[in-house]
Amino acid sequence: MEELAALRWEGDFVSLLDQTLLPHRTAWRRIATQEEMEEAIRRLQVRGAPAVGIAGAFALYLGLRGFSGSRDELVPALQGTARAVAAVRPTAVNLAWAVNRAVAAAHTCPTVPAAVASLLKTALDLLQEDREHNSRLAANGLPILGKTCRAMTYCHTGAIATGGHGTALAILRRGWQAGAVAHVYIPETRPLLQGARLTAWELKRAGVAATLVTDNAAAWLMSQGRVDLVLVGADRITARGDVANKIGTLGLAILARHYEIPFYVAATRSTIDWSLADGGDIPIEMRDPREVTHFSGRAVAPARMPALAPAFDVTPAPLVTGIITELGVHRPPFAETLPRADPGALASP
Amino acid sequence: MEELAALRWEGDFVSLLDQTLLPHRTAWRRIATQEEMEEAIRRLQVRGAPAVGIAGAFALYLGLRGFSGSRDELVPALQGTARAVAAVRPTAVNLAWAVNRAVAAAHTCPTVPAAVASLLKTALDLLQEDREHNSRLAANGLPILGKTCRAMTYCHTGAIATGGHGTALAILRRGWQAGAVAHVYIPETRPLLQGARLTAWELKRAGVAATLVTDNAAAWLMSQGRVDLVLVGADRITARGDVANKIGTLGLAILARHYEIPFYVAATRSTIDWSLADGGDIPIEMRDPREVTHFSGRAVAPARMPALAPAFDVTPAPLVTGIITELGVHRPPFAETLPRADPGALASP
Repeated sequence: MEELAALRWEGDFVSLLDQTLLPHRTAWRRIATQEEMEEAIRRLQVRGAPAVGIAGAFALYLGLRGFSGSRDELVPALQGTARAVAAVRPTAVNLAWAVNRAVAAAHTCPTVPAAVASLLKTALDLLQEDREHNSRLAANGLPILGKTCRAMTYCHTGAIATGGHGTALAILRRGWQAGAVAHVYIPETRPLLQGARLTAWELKRAGVAATLVTDNAAAWLMSQGRVDLVLVGADRITARGDVANKIGTLGLAILARHYEIPFYVAATRSTIDWSLADGGDIPIEMRDPREVTHFSGRAVAPARMPALAPAFDVTPAPLVTGIITELGVHRPPFAETLPRADPGALASP
Repeated sequence: MEELAALRWEGDFVSLLDQTLLPHRTAWRRIATQEEMEEAIRRLQVRGAPAVGIAGAFALYLGLRGFSGSRDELVPALQGTARAVAAVRPTAVNLAWAVNRAVAAAHTCPTVPAAVASLLKTALDLLQEDREHNSRLAANGLPILGKTCRAMTYCHTGAIATGGHGTALAILRRGWQAGAVAHVYIPETRPLLQGARLTAWELKRAGVAATLVTDNAAAWLMSQGRVDLVLVGADRITARGDVANKIGTLGLAILARHYEIPFYVAATRSTIDWSLADGGDIPIEMRDPREVTHFSGRAVAPARMPALAPAFDVTPAPLVTGIITELGVHRPPFAETLPRADPGALASP
């Protein structure tokens, strides 16, 4: 079975798995310019906060590899390009974080060729690091599963959402292999059905027992005692533990609290925005209302029906049982525990 | 503007609005046999608990109008037909209730022709009564709206879900006319999108300011302080006030409780099942999983992906602020208040 990846560097261009065509087609796009990468990010051909961050770092390199100006001219060019790339998807912090890191590294280089080379190196480093962090995070998450856990996850947090194995889904896949996960429930994740298209596909491919439901069936499953744990990913986590993630996550967290089911978030530390405390300050990307009113180009609502398509919501920290990162399982109060490694982490360095 | 109706009796057959084609096409089907009506109910061409009850009564008449046996043979024939019709959709009590009422009336008739005639009369009476009850219910519901209410409704509870004006949606339409409703939020109601297809269409047709969202955006809207009240219909209400309604209703009730938003249910009294106390005893109809894995015949999940498609869930009475019927607004404890008329009802007889 070919290993899953969101994107690969092919020496001169990026090969990017077009996630909008899954699960029906596995097609790779050749991305050779900044504009092509921005378009791929905007259309969600690459998605998942960590993968988008890495894609953004490659966009920066692709945008500047032909730069012909002086070293002094490079700084404003870098900054302008970085702003443009980071603005494509404003909610996930990984994109801004990855782009900022690439710019910072390039800044320290004495010559234009060295700076441009550092942009590529940063993108490749991010890819490699995310892979390692995913692996540690998955090991760290195992203890939360207990035995024969029936888990609910949400949206898609697997290999192709990251640079490596995934976040929440990596824990569940590894838990399945270890016999700790008995079943996974997958809400479809409207409007773009990442649960039905991507998580269902990835779990089926891995042989994990899983069942697809509509998002609005989550409360029913919980009321029937069929869910032991909810485990989701994140697009941005504030310093005090508020969590921006796919629209619908907040509802699952409230339902889990009502039924006294643990609600965990798994994310690499690149998802933590240390500059924010209050999740209410996270900008929420509003998508085209046609994502709600149309399905595969076909209208499902009356013509010109007003609709809202928020891409994310924010789950306040008090609804979160724990946050799993490559440094362990962090528990409330997150403002104190998030900055430090969990001494009990299975795979801390 | 033509008045909306789920079905009409045309003297020899039923004209039935095919709700699966809305909002794109308004097509009427000619239903002349019991089998055609059962098929229309099964395929949700007619849906909404009250409308399905009335359709069931017509099915009974259509099935027995050619009955050629004796008066003694009529009873088992009636019972067999009634069981078959009531089994098509097991959760909504209106269908069983309407069919039972028709059988009971026919039982008292001395001759076969009189019994058959009584079946038609029952169906026509149900249609007329539901219309009157809807009208009273809508008047009774007005006081819960307060002023400039921003309401969230769910699924479809309008004219074509009933024999008349609707239940929850009738209150909201009347509230809009009275200036008491400022905005209506409509979750799309997966998998069959009755919110997007039917409620959006009916409110747009009535000129009501409304916005469509995915079901999983309800918590986000509430967290933003944009929802003052949730008002839904019901498919079965137990004697103590547990409410079976479209899958997803339970989740909205829990979210409303979390955000301290009133959660009301509107239904005519034919929806109350006095034989049950515990909502856990209500049978939940499981639909074809293809309703989840496919959209308009097109797969949205991997081939052979297991899926569950419960049509309904049950909201426990403690999550319900009030139940609005043609006899007024009933408040907890429902076991005591549901059997009696509300002395404050605006439109009680």
